[in-house]
Amino acid sequence: MKKFVISVLFFVTYSVCAQAPLPSWNEGPSKQAVLSFIEKTTSTDSLDFIPIPQRIAVFDNDGTLWSEQPIYVQIAFTFDRIKALAHQYPEWKTQQPFKAALEGDIKGVLASGQEGLFKLIAATHAGLTTEAFREIAEQWLKTARHPKTGRLYTEMVYQPMIELLAYLESRGYKNYIVSGGGIEFMRPWTEIIYGIPPERVIGSSIKSKFEIVNGIPQIVGLPEMQFIDDKENKPIAIQERIGRRPVMAFGNSDGDYEMLLWTTAGKGPRFGMLIHHTDEVREVAYDRKSSIGRLNTALDEAPIKGWTVVDMKREWREIFTAK
Amino acid sequence: MKKFVISVLFFVTYSVCAQAPLPSWNEGPSKQAVLSFIEKTTSTDSLDFIPIPQRIAVFDNDGTLWSEQPIYVQIAFTFDRIKALAHQYPEWKTQQPFKAALEGDIKGVLASGQEGLFKLIAATHAGLTTEAFREIAEQWLKTARHPKTGRLYTEMVYQPMIELLAYLESRGYKNYIVSGGGIEFMRPWTEIIYGIPPERVIGSSIKSKFEIVNGIPQIVGLPEMQFIDDKENKPIAIQERIGRRPVMAFGNSDGDYEMLLWTTAGKGPRFGMLIHHTDEVREVAYDRKSSIGRLNTALDEAPIKGWTVVDMKREWREIFTAK
Repeated sequence: MKKFVISVLFFVTYSVCAQAPLPSWNEGPSKQAVLSFIEKTTSTDSLDFIPIPQRIAVFDNDGTLWSEQPIYVQIAFTFDRIKALAHQYPEWKTQQPFKAALEGDIKGVLASGQEGLFKLIAATHAGLTTEAFREIAEQWLKTARHPKTGRLYTEMVYQPMIELLAYLESRGYKNYIVSGGGIEFMRPWTEIIYGIPPERVIGSSIKSKFEIVNGIPQIVGLPEMQFIDDKENKPIAIQERIGRRPVMAFGNSDGDYEMLLWTTAGKGPRFGMLIHHTDEVREVAYDRKSSIGRLNTALDEAPIKGWTVVDMKREWREIFTAK
Repeated sequence: MKKFVISVLFFVTYSVCAQAPLPSWNEGPSKQAVLSFIEKTTSTDSLDFIPIPQRIAVFDNDGTLWSEQPIYVQIAFTFDRIKALAHQYPEWKTQQPFKAALEGDIKGVLASGQEGLFKLIAATHAGLTTEAFREIAEQWLKTARHPKTGRLYTEMVYQPMIELLAYLESRGYKNYIVSGGGIEFMRPWTEIIYGIPPERVIGSSIKSKFEIVNGIPQIVGLPEMQFIDDKENKPIAIQERIGRRPVMAFGNSDGDYEMLLWTTAGKGPRFGMLIHHTDEVREVAYDRKSSIGRLNTALDEAPIKGWTVVDMKREWREIFTAK
């Protein structure tokens, strides 16, 4: 009996210690900060212990969990959808931002602003049942490749963040995505790639309607934005969807500023982290002036608020997951 | 070692069998239907086995988990809020539906329709931070009593459903509330009373804004409805929030009809249940003609769709939880 208990204890200890957490993070201030925060909030003998149901961590997606350069993955998907649907809409050849999208002119599309992007999304994501859209997105992700690296987009996720997600789950944290990206575009792959199930994906969405066609109930997307999950809408969506203030928040741009503010203003231990894109060789170096993922206000505020800023170039041993 | 294993097995078996599930349900078709569905979808050797992540059960609240007569609990709360705020709004003395609410005239308020109800809700639930509203709702629920039974409203929950919620959780199902009631009105007590955490409460909501007051970020309710979680909006909210089609759906009125349709039209084993209020002695008998919780179309459709209809009078040994 005693031997049995000892064997079990050994096995448990061995499994946990077999690999030190976050192997793709170099030793440094960010790794130390996040590990010591997880330790103090999950050790039962800690004054900062947080019960499991309250261990909520929220993650931006684009630029935080996977690459968003040279353009958001969903926009690349949208360009391909525009091309596939163009024969049904001859007027797109002359109308912006459709014209620019058809010509693969990223700058032209970006010139139309966020509004232009959402016009493209509404036009290409609507008119389909939830299931049909899911299938199209899934199929695209299986074949479409990043223009620079030639990798599948699902191979453009950050290995250090994948390790962090898994480590947080192992310590009783529940990870949520809170992204400006479309909920239904993310759900087909977030469970496989990040271990984040569909009910923990928060994002932007188009309106939809419930209808019965030939006796079969359907939910069909409408060509109109319902919710844009960015900036001050992120804390609003977190409250609406989760109903608890997160303990940890991870972002990379000014679009995540309010989410980090809201999270770290809560009582008790809180943690904010910004991924700073500093690696011009292994990825892209960008921050204050980028039209995608601009990081300016939040970068200025980080030291004042006590947020951890990850220097990707120095602090990440690996950037992308192995193919 | 062998003895140890046998002891463990005995203990596990004993704990599970110590009490047969659903003790407040009389033996009958409804108890049998729900138990055999749970059994076949959770036994690993069953052809209808459903993996744990897909075991989603959705429950309407008013009239399904707790009493909704003579008026929705949230409306009783709203009446009290109207009275408390009336001195700030002298015009309410003559404006409907405020006048009726101030006079405690339920019929007068109901005459203003759903729109009138939502006018009252918007006026009384707005202008507060999430935390402040939560405190007011919590405080009210600690003292307000049902006009007929004199019980606290949280004692007006149905014991058979409390047992069902707990049994489903013990079999790996995740229970969600999908209610026409306000999310923030339900969250303060659903975890304690139903074991349903805030992130699994789906409901109606008012708009809100994020703002920073004296350096402190706040989310404040606005006097405008954002989403009314009823009828065809229930499946839409389920898709938006959960992103998986539920396996089981429980309701009691035509407001739940589309949710049951959506749930039970899915592939594989699905289960729909309607609570039919048939007990005029222990509760209230109402269905086709009630202005609260009307059950007409769904009652006609139940036999066609194969939904189980619970005859409360005959099938529930107890109605309310013990005080």
